[in-house]
Amino acid sequence: MTTDKLEVASVATKANVYFDGKCVSHGIQLADGTKKSVGVILPATLTFNTGAAEIMECVAGACEYKLAGSSEWKKSAAGEKFSVPAHSSFEIRVAEAYHYICHFG
Amino acid sequence: MTTDKLEVASVATKANVYFDGKCVSHGIQLADGTKKSVGVILPATLTFNTGAAEIMECVAGACEYKLAGSSEWKKSAAGEKFSVPAHSSFEIRVAEAYHYICHFG
Repeated sequence: MTTDKLEVASVATKANVYFDGKCVSHGIQLADGTKKSVGVILPATLTFNTGAAEIMECVAGACEYKLAGSSEWKKSAAGEKFSVPAHSSFEIRVAEAYHYICHFG
Repeated sequence: MTTDKLEVASVATKANVYFDGKCVSHGIQLADGTKKSVGVILPATLTFNTGAAEIMECVAGACEYKLAGSSEWKKSAAGEKFSVPAHSSFEIRVAEAYHYICHFG
């Protein structure tokens, strides 16, 4: 099941634009103070570095991802999640568009 | 003064991607049911058609816009708004990035 709508308390109105717009996200904050972001990655192959650990939840579209230290590309589609450790990185390749919620920690 | 953060009730997790990603927005809903969107337009010259009337509020960056029937390009920067009638259109040209809140009606 995909998370089509997220109950939140506030949204940062200025987007985060990465890689010349290949990734665009907006920060959101829940009523309990938890911070997440919602975003989209457009067709590209990109490398992201993590500060905090992240769980990437796909809400539409799909991607393939490869965690640092792994040689295996895995697929993640709508309704699926993958976890990335803190202070690590992952490669992601997207053929159409990958819509996601990024959960931190 | 710019609206950096917007108190909302929910956010649509799937982005709206227009013009091959030159415009990306997320729908939001306030506690009273009002719908808006937050988005960003990347460097481009684009034409948007309106259904409902819209007020475009710039929260970061800037744009130039030209309403249907006008020959004049006007500038809109952070903290400024412009209105577009229902069932109309406007051209927008962006040199860096134009971050906005779109208020409907």
